[in-house]
Amino acid sequence: MSRSINLAVIPGDGIGQEVVAEGLKVLSAVLPQDVKLETKEYDFGARRYHATGETLTDADLDALERHDAILLGAIGDPSVPSGVLERGFLLKLRFAFDHHVNLRPSKLLPGVATPLAGQPEIDFVVVREGTEGPYTGNGGTIRKGTEHEVATEVSVNTAFGVERVVRDAFARAQARPRKKLTLVHKNNVLTFAGHLWTNIFDKVAAEYPDVTTDYIHVDAATIYLVTDPGRFDVIVTDNLFGDIITDLAAAVSGGIGVAASGNINPSREFPSMFEPVHGSAPDIAGQGKADPTATVLSVALLLRHLGHDAEAARIEDAVSADLADRGGLPARSTSQIGDALAARVAG
Amino acid sequence: MSRSINLAVIPGDGIGQEVVAEGLKVLSAVLPQDVKLETKEYDFGARRYHATGETLTDADLDALERHDAILLGAIGDPSVPSGVLERGFLLKLRFAFDHHVNLRPSKLLPGVATPLAGQPEIDFVVVREGTEGPYTGNGGTIRKGTEHEVATEVSVNTAFGVERVVRDAFARAQARPRKKLTLVHKNNVLTFAGHLWTNIFDKVAAEYPDVTTDYIHVDAATIYLVTDPGRFDVIVTDNLFGDIITDLAAAVSGGIGVAASGNINPSREFPSMFEPVHGSAPDIAGQGKADPTATVLSVALLLRHLGHDAEAARIEDAVSADLADRGGLPARSTSQIGDALAARVAG
Ligand SMILES: CC(C)[C@H](C(=O)O)[C@@H](O)C(=O)O
Ligand SMILES: CC(C)[C@H](C(=O)O)[C@@H](O)C(=O)O
Repeated sequence: MSRSINLAVIPGDGIGQEVVAEGLKVLSAVLPQDVKLETKEYDFGARRYHATGETLTDADLDALERHDAILLGAIGDPSVPSGVLERGFLLKLRFAFDHHVNLRPSKLLPGVATPLAGQPEIDFVVVREGTEGPYTGNGGTIRKGTEHEVATEVSVNTAFGVERVVRDAFARAQARPRKKLTLVHKNNVLTFAGHLWTNIFDKVAAEYPDVTTDYIHVDAATIYLVTDPGRFDVIVTDNLFGDIITDLAAAVSGGIGVAASGNINPSREFPSMFEPVHGSAPDIAGQGKADPTATVLSVALLLRHLGHDAEAARIEDAVSADLADRGGLPARSTSQIGDALAARVAG
Repeated sequence: MSRSINLAVIPGDGIGQEVVAEGLKVLSAVLPQDVKLETKEYDFGARRYHATGETLTDADLDALERHDAILLGAIGDPSVPSGVLERGFLLKLRFAFDHHVNLRPSKLLPGVATPLAGQPEIDFVVVREGTEGPYTGNGGTIRKGTEHEVATEVSVNTAFGVERVVRDAFARAQARPRKKLTLVHKNNVLTFAGHLWTNIFDKVAAEYPDVTTDYIHVDAATIYLVTDPGRFDVIVTDNLFGDIITDLAAAVSGGIGVAASGNINPSREFPSMFEPVHGSAPDIAGQGKADPTATVLSVALLLRHLGHDAEAARIEDAVSADLADRGGLPARSTSQIGDALAARVAG
């Protein structure tokens, strides 16, 4: 547990600005007096791209690398062509800092609305691989724009990359009361990658006899996420499947307004990055309508990553209490929710 | 509209046998006297594989090719390694017969239970590309079984393949009252394939000014499928995304017990194949517990493909009426449901 936190702050685009301000408010409120918090803000995102054409330079990476962790709001704007900021900033950072554990907890808290009938119990964590799969940017296009165009995307999976994330997921499953780990893949169709994932999963499983294991195809997993989400405890899956099922998981467990994520480098060789699962929501930006809860919960993940478990738990308890009290109350602004959470963690 | 139907029947594994029997029962009951139905059963699936090591030979393909259409129950058994029958039979057939339009309607019928709160209106069709994407079997493995293993999967997308399925989807959207088509992809990350899909979609859209168009990333699409499924009319998407979202679509619109699909070759160069979205469900096989409705609805898709629209509509009406009447009634066996549907279409 560090006595100082040197944090890189990337508000980004759209509602990113607003929600990050509340995340920092709650972070300052929860930290004990003797933990020194230093923050430095970076202007990545659409404005910087339009002004300079840059998304993330080598100098930027050098600067970011000197921080203990990164808090990100959201990146993306309709004025920038699809893919430019995603590949040029978000994914570039995840790859450069080897964020191979993309951690996405899903917990349906009391009092929170879900689109599912009957308020099922939902409490699971998805460990999404963050540096391989179809996200590597391998692939290409020939005869672009002609009737003979061919475009490929290559999913790259290595024993090294799969094993380290599978091990991380087993350790997380073992630390939870239910001790259950589900591998989600599509090994009946993607047989090359599927065999690699399945074989490594089975090999590591032998070292964790107390963890119950399970395998589900990704298509079937989406069915269970709406018909029986309680069956999941920890899920480990590849980058693309993880992207898809964590949005669905967020939707059924209270919406992306409360879905937090960590892009984690467990070895701490590089700083980890914490961000809400939601995007920049340009349609509601600047209006104080965004719910900062997902960002605040991402701050809790950040604190736990840095060893401040008690503070992380205080934030999570404050969020639970705030959500439980929402029913019937008039809608609050972004900063009102931030104020309420800051008051709870301080009090 | 043909005055004779020469049908290949592939019951397959598990509950496949039971549900196909009911599909044929309803087909016989609905056809007018003067339409001659000939059926020939094929024994593909796990038994044949264990007995001979074969999944689908060239001679099999020659024989199947002589039929007007194929009705399939389900293929797959835990006794066969994952991927063998999927790649060696199901996908081999889809590719050999160029089933590039994989049609999967989702309609929440009155009286049918959904895991979603508030019984939303759901009535959309997914046009899933069936012969490209990561399903082509391109890819491979090096250093298998070692700590240096690398496994790749290549998604192959061609202008030819994308344009024909996008055109099919636009035509279907134009023929529906709402005239709305949504492209689902992940063009912010899979930029090579994403640009190809998006450019062709936009190009063809210009020829259909009366069709409203929309683009949604696949991860966000899973959110809308549970929070606002009514927004969808026709969806066009790639093979893998289509696989994933149609299972979710089936789950929210009544479950895979009622989800039908067609693997269609619109040019009719080869016979099209119709099958329930569900699998062989070995856990309930042979017990008369399987719901044959998805197979019966697949028979309706088959009839419509062969030009028997009135008979297809009769089957769909019978299914709607049967489902609406289920509430409160004791559970019926597979053949009791088949009998009830056959009586309705005949009566
Ligand atoms: C914006 C995009 C690159 C990103 C992803 O696909 O990983 C997002 O969807 C997420 O889940 O964090
Ligand atoms: C069994 C499998 C090969 C198949 C697919 O992935 O297409 C199935 O999930 C489906 O959707 O028809």
